[in-house]
Amino acid sequence: LKNKQKEAFREEFLDLHPTDQTEIFKQMSHEKRKAVYDYLRAKEFAELFQGLALHEQKQVFTELEDQYALEMLKQLPADDITDFFSEIPDHISTYLLSSMNVEEAENIKFLLSHQDDSAGSLMTTEFISVSPTATIDEVMEQLRQEGMGAETIYYIYVVDQSNKLIGVVSLREIISAPLQLTIDQVMKEQVVTVFPTMDQERVSKVIKDYNLLAVPVVSEDEQLVGIITVDDVLDVLDDEVSEDIGEFAAARGAVDLDVSSMVATKKRLPWLVLLLLIGMLTAGLIGTFEATLAEVALLAMFIPLIADMAGNTGTQSLAVVVRGLALNQFNRDTIIRLIKRETATGLMMGIVCGIIVSMIALFLSQGSPILGFIIGVSLFVTILFSTLSGTIIPLLIHKLKIDPVVASGPFITTINDIIGLFVYFSIATSLLHYF
Amino acid sequence: LKNKQKEAFREEFLDLHPTDQTEIFKQMSHEKRKAVYDYLRAKEFAELFQGLALHEQKQVFTELEDQYALEMLKQLPADDITDFFSEIPDHISTYLLSSMNVEEAENIKFLLSHQDDSAGSLMTTEFISVSPTATIDEVMEQLRQEGMGAETIYYIYVVDQSNKLIGVVSLREIISAPLQLTIDQVMKEQVVTVFPTMDQERVSKVIKDYNLLAVPVVSEDEQLVGIITVDDVLDVLDDEVSEDIGEFAAARGAVDLDVSSMVATKKRLPWLVLLLLIGMLTAGLIGTFEATLAEVALLAMFIPLIADMAGNTGTQSLAVVVRGLALNQFNRDTIIRLIKRETATGLMMGIVCGIIVSMIALFLSQGSPILGFIIGVSLFVTILFSTLSGTIIPLLIHKLKIDPVVASGPFITTINDIIGLFVYFSIATSLLHYF
Repeated sequence: LKNKQKEAFREEFLDLHPTDQTEIFKQMSHEKRKAVYDYLRAKEFAELFQGLALHEQKQVFTELEDQYALEMLKQLPADDITDFFSEIPDHISTYLLSSMNVEEAENIKFLLSHQDDSAGSLMTTEFISVSPTATIDEVMEQLRQEGMGAETIYYIYVVDQSNKLIGVVSLREIISAPLQLTIDQVMKEQVVTVFPTMDQERVSKVIKDYNLLAVPVVSEDEQLVGIITVDDVLDVLDDEVSEDIGEFAAARGAVDLDVSSMVATKKRLPWLVLLLLIGMLTAGLIGTFEATLAEVALLAMFIPLIADMAGNTGTQSLAVVVRGLALNQFNRDTIIRLIKRETATGLMMGIVCGIIVSMIALFLSQGSPILGFIIGVSLFVTILFSTLSGTIIPLLIHKLKIDPVVASGPFITTINDIIGLFVYFSIATSLLHYF
Repeated sequence: LKNKQKEAFREEFLDLHPTDQTEIFKQMSHEKRKAVYDYLRAKEFAELFQGLALHEQKQVFTELEDQYALEMLKQLPADDITDFFSEIPDHISTYLLSSMNVEEAENIKFLLSHQDDSAGSLMTTEFISVSPTATIDEVMEQLRQEGMGAETIYYIYVVDQSNKLIGVVSLREIISAPLQLTIDQVMKEQVVTVFPTMDQERVSKVIKDYNLLAVPVVSEDEQLVGIITVDDVLDVLDDEVSEDIGEFAAARGAVDLDVSSMVATKKRLPWLVLLLLIGMLTAGLIGTFEATLAEVALLAMFIPLIADMAGNTGTQSLAVVVRGLALNQFNRDTIIRLIKRETATGLMMGIVCGIIVSMIALFLSQGSPILGFIIGVSLFVTILFSTLSGTIIPLLIHKLKIDPVVASGPFITTINDIIGLFVYFSIATSLLHYF
């Protein structure tokens, strides 16, 4: 009976797409998971295992029996094994490598040798390469044999005897070519390539810009060492979005749920301390207006309003520049157009917000127009100036080859705070006898 | 002579990858561009045209002669024509459609009928479909003939007589299958599909999660109406990042360089006005402490510091939640773990920042420890509380099915401002006689 039930489960479960298998597995209790390890062969479980996040893989791996775990690992694509190995303690990965055959182990050690977030760390060595003198017919035969083990068979890479990359053919071209032609008659010699040390963000840009399904990775001496496929790049883009949002929020490297509170503090605290020190400048500025404040304590009411609005407006403009830089949209013309547009936008927003805040202040202070006038004008200046500094400062910082997101946010907010509050207190001080 | 030069240019230029052709073309002066239109055939120019951004396409289109322009349009993939048509004035697209043959025009009108940012607006109708009774051999022959015109030949979709999608085969599987088998013997019947009305962000998630190169679009009655390929999704992801950053900066829909100052103001101003009105709450709070401020004007010094730090800390935590939601990482367990982590993180960051700011205040006020004590304790409370509200508020807002990024930012900053400043002034007021 148990065997029958087992077979029924197996069949139904394996009929699902591996991604769905993974989703169901993730919802299972510890006991049910044990049944899965029992019911599925190591090779079948490998499909499901690939879909897990790295921290889930680590957890699941501890639940597997040694032999089953090793068997399963061998079925994973080389780039997935590499990702997994780079996450587990060294003595375990060394032990696992020693249980593999020499060739496999060497391959994984080679892949592990590349830096995180580089093309080398993303690539896999499971590609199809052919000689330029092979015929279409021979290549088709090779695809039939090697096809299922390769990461993609849709691009076939052409290498000479010394493994130098000399061309590429798509499977689409192979399919429509006469069988007796040789590869060098149909291949493209201009191949878009990347280097193992290239940053993964640039790799994803190459794949996107050239509409590729995969890009070959070549060493300095033009040897073909691996390929990176578009699905790996899609995962990278998720990481990049996390990175962008992290930078925007001054929490770079700490937006991941899996990070411990110690690590989160270590990544986020330095920014807070920096912002704190910069904030002292504003405190100092207000300190110099102590006499004015002592006379009209109500002036303090609008300090956070000006500070917050300066930050908000600057951040809006910063977002435009950051996206433009990421998408590589800037040249002399577009920069001039952008500055003109932001000036006009800042003017309009400043006028509207200035009028609204004066009206409210007038209403709150029940008829005394002075405070309304001061806060209205100050907010107008703050918004106009913040829009411009939010545009120009990140562009300047980028010129200095510093990452504009991380560096600009606090900088912009502080300068805008200071300008806004300086205007506010200057007008207030000069109009003091009208209060 | 001119002809020789023309041929030399043509050959060299066409040897480049279309993406590189586009890049070079974009750098050219108006005169040189004219030569390109002259030297390249409409079909050849179409390759380059596809790589241009929509606003560049609009510009370039006006420079082309009518006949050449029409010829070129016909060579574009259906989804590219559709994108372009949705950007140009209606009377021009109507005129262009009337110059095309009826079938082509109907196809484009069908694609144009879908909503922006939906699966329908992304899809193309240029896919390969076969009958379940076709043999592998017949399908290979069909691929040879239709292959070059299709958007992808790497997935072959199987439809019955009524055009209902009943299966899918990858070219990889076709290649390794014996020639005499029929498609229904090798196809997978469980096909991952999307609907024409599905949001493009969800489409890209499907393609990413299932590691697909393309996904079929089916109507409600399961008819196959189009496909969406992974390269279109890569472009969508860029838009989505812009959207995310726009939301984070309260500038949703206005981070694009091509937006006019009028549109930018219209999109950004409502947020600023909202933030302005919310900011009035803080102003009101400070107003109630007028008496304290009148006695110790220096207390105003640290108002912007507390306001800014409350915003910064809250935003850091918000970033964690926003990413977790986007990546679908939350369940009861992860939420509890996150809140524990953020509490610990907030405690540590609060202690460090609190100590630093008291020391600085002590130093600035030259020996009077009261202000240092007040600001230190207040900043500690502000940071701890901001970390928690930055975590919990967006989770609650998400429960209410409101987009947490747009709604949370101002909300969090304001609540944190108020708590922080309330603590600050409360302590200050109760310690007033020690100043």
